[in-house]
Amino acid sequence: MIILVMNAGSSSLKYQLYNMEDESVLAQGRVERIGMDASILVHEPAGKAEVNEVSEILDHNTAVRRLIDMITHKEHGVLESMKEIHAVGHRVVHGGESFKQSTIVTDDVKKEIRRLFDLAPLHNPPAMMGITAVEYNLPEVPQVVVFDTAFHQSMPQETFLYPIPMVLYRRHKIRRYGFHGTSHDYVSKLAAKTLGMPLESLKLVTCHIGNGASCAAIMNGRSFDTSMGLTPLEGLMMGTRSGDLDPAIVPFTMNKEELTLNEVNSMLNKHSGLLAISGIGSDMREIVEAMDAGDKQAKLAFDMYTYRLRKYIGAYAAGMNGLDAIVFTAGVGENSVAVRKAVCENLSFLGIELDDARNEVRSKEPRSITTDASRVKALVVPTNEELLIARDTDRLVKGIV
Amino acid sequence: MIILVMNAGSSSLKYQLYNMEDESVLAQGRVERIGMDASILVHEPAGKAEVNEVSEILDHNTAVRRLIDMITHKEHGVLESMKEIHAVGHRVVHGGESFKQSTIVTDDVKKEIRRLFDLAPLHNPPAMMGITAVEYNLPEVPQVVVFDTAFHQSMPQETFLYPIPMVLYRRHKIRRYGFHGTSHDYVSKLAAKTLGMPLESLKLVTCHIGNGASCAAIMNGRSFDTSMGLTPLEGLMMGTRSGDLDPAIVPFTMNKEELTLNEVNSMLNKHSGLLAISGIGSDMREIVEAMDAGDKQAKLAFDMYTYRLRKYIGAYAAGMNGLDAIVFTAGVGENSVAVRKAVCENLSFLGIELDDARNEVRSKEPRSITTDASRVKALVVPTNEELLIARDTDRLVKGIV
Repeated sequence: MIILVMNAGSSSLKYQLYNMEDESVLAQGRVERIGMDASILVHEPAGKAEVNEVSEILDHNTAVRRLIDMITHKEHGVLESMKEIHAVGHRVVHGGESFKQSTIVTDDVKKEIRRLFDLAPLHNPPAMMGITAVEYNLPEVPQVVVFDTAFHQSMPQETFLYPIPMVLYRRHKIRRYGFHGTSHDYVSKLAAKTLGMPLESLKLVTCHIGNGASCAAIMNGRSFDTSMGLTPLEGLMMGTRSGDLDPAIVPFTMNKEELTLNEVNSMLNKHSGLLAISGIGSDMREIVEAMDAGDKQAKLAFDMYTYRLRKYIGAYAAGMNGLDAIVFTAGVGENSVAVRKAVCENLSFLGIELDDARNEVRSKEPRSITTDASRVKALVVPTNEELLIARDTDRLVKGIV
Repeated sequence: MIILVMNAGSSSLKYQLYNMEDESVLAQGRVERIGMDASILVHEPAGKAEVNEVSEILDHNTAVRRLIDMITHKEHGVLESMKEIHAVGHRVVHGGESFKQSTIVTDDVKKEIRRLFDLAPLHNPPAMMGITAVEYNLPEVPQVVVFDTAFHQSMPQETFLYPIPMVLYRRHKIRRYGFHGTSHDYVSKLAAKTLGMPLESLKLVTCHIGNGASCAAIMNGRSFDTSMGLTPLEGLMMGTRSGDLDPAIVPFTMNKEELTLNEVNSMLNKHSGLLAISGIGSDMREIVEAMDAGDKQAKLAFDMYTYRLRKYIGAYAAGMNGLDAIVFTAGVGENSVAVRKAVCENLSFLGIELDDARNEVRSKEPRSITTDASRVKALVVPTNEELLIARDTDRLVKGIV
């Protein structure tokens, strides 16, 4: 079974082509600057040279056609014909309350995704464009949608509702949805395997910390709470997003700086977080480097970031009344020795005992970074959202629900 | 030393008259509906009958004159003459970064409180009216101001700064201030005494949960973090305030419900919290009663309230990397057996072992509600902000800094 995984943004499209026999990646790549001049196509076929093309790609239809051309290209391709593609799996950010799991695309499903544009105006419309583009180019091929929110649909009311008038939930579905669900799901399963314990018996806090970042409390294999909310703005301090703050700061800042609501929203999403405090950038590697060189603002950004992460871990341990392991994943979680150290060393009261040598190991494999005696474990589990999308697509197309 | 403690609101004024020899309350009372028709004055002299008067009290000057009349009244009074009042202590909500402790009122102090009107437009101006009214009526009497924010001025940068552009802090002092400081200070000291341990050695989470509610992480006797922020909106779910939520809910709700920013702000402050979820009211007693009678929304409100409180306790334990005791105070904290039970029983992983019989004791004394074997303790410590204001006033007027 050959499966194409797609992640469509408003002006970009990322893809991976999987051979599900051995879950190997046959090719991957991306189209950038769709609809602008000088669009870029990058194609990396396994075992062959990378291709970089600059051309004019005006819409997602053309982008999908160009990537199929590449995949089946005589020289750069990895398939004989596009007929070898059995199914396409799409990442869709928002599934609202309608989608509690991945599903095969039908007319009703498309209608529902359109209805949810409201909740994710920046993310769902391009995903829909990706789906339509595949329909156009590969009309016979079944498609599957995998939602960032679906895994968190197991949250109980007391964690997903906000303490605001109930009418806002009933009328507009204002509630906590959470995101990165595919990743939290994937790493929690792999963490249980790594610990050699049944997932159903575990209380985990999974920390998906990349440029966007969220924590989840996973109990009995189900998401019980998560730090992102109605939108990906809430929760942890991130690369450029503030995460949690006094909501009263929104009107206060508008008033003081004579900004519009959109400008404040943009400030909180694009000009806050690590970038705002460090004055250096949103990349944790740069922050740690500057901190090690004695930069005080970088140190402050690092301290705020790790302090706020620690607070979430403690909060979720309290929420579940227990904790068996912390799981670090995504860019920062998988690679930042310093962040993991600052978090774990300051949670010794929970029974976490960091093993410095293990923490410094670089690897693509799931691994423990605590001592064997550590009562609560900490793990690094590299995430792979694309693989999980491919697996869900494979499973659903085979008719396994 | 006789000390008058005052807490002035925009249309109200509460007072207590203390004899500092034995810290007894000689009289207390309040003026309500100042500046409206049918103002109410309630005066409760110790050992004498309560007085209720309806009259026209047009401003704070008149309110202060009327209460002095009452205190020195032949029949209802407790003093021979107003000359017996040695000092007046005022509660002031916002001391900004200028006031790290209580202080004697001078021209400079008044100027600074006025400069802070901006940060607490609803609270600081009436406090100033109270100060001016006392100056007018008791021109010879020294006054002291005690700030709700002062105790929290010990917070380090990484807990008081928000991850937003630093210029907002530098230019407008947008940061976490925290409130209820007088109460957190008072109960943490009394908790140490009750535990028989030096405050400097303890890691405490104090939960001041009344109609407004905040938690504080107290380490070495100093506030290390607290849940209210720039304003009292942030943090715990309260009677009518939402506490924490995705800041993106502000623009989303404005847009969906066609509300102005002020209307959303008012909704989050006055029509959210317990009231919004239960649909019953903002009083925890009513919520618990309805819940016990089988009301599902009341149960949901209770569960959200206690869940969010537990998360803060866990977060602060993680923030301090340890926890010796939780302290419950204020209306809900002192009186709600059900809230304390729901919080403590679900924090057993921290080493908290609730003693049900102790939890059900009603008393005005500080007391433990955990078993003797409990590794982490939980205490109920009735707060007394007025007494602390009286003590600070006494101390400062005597020249002890």
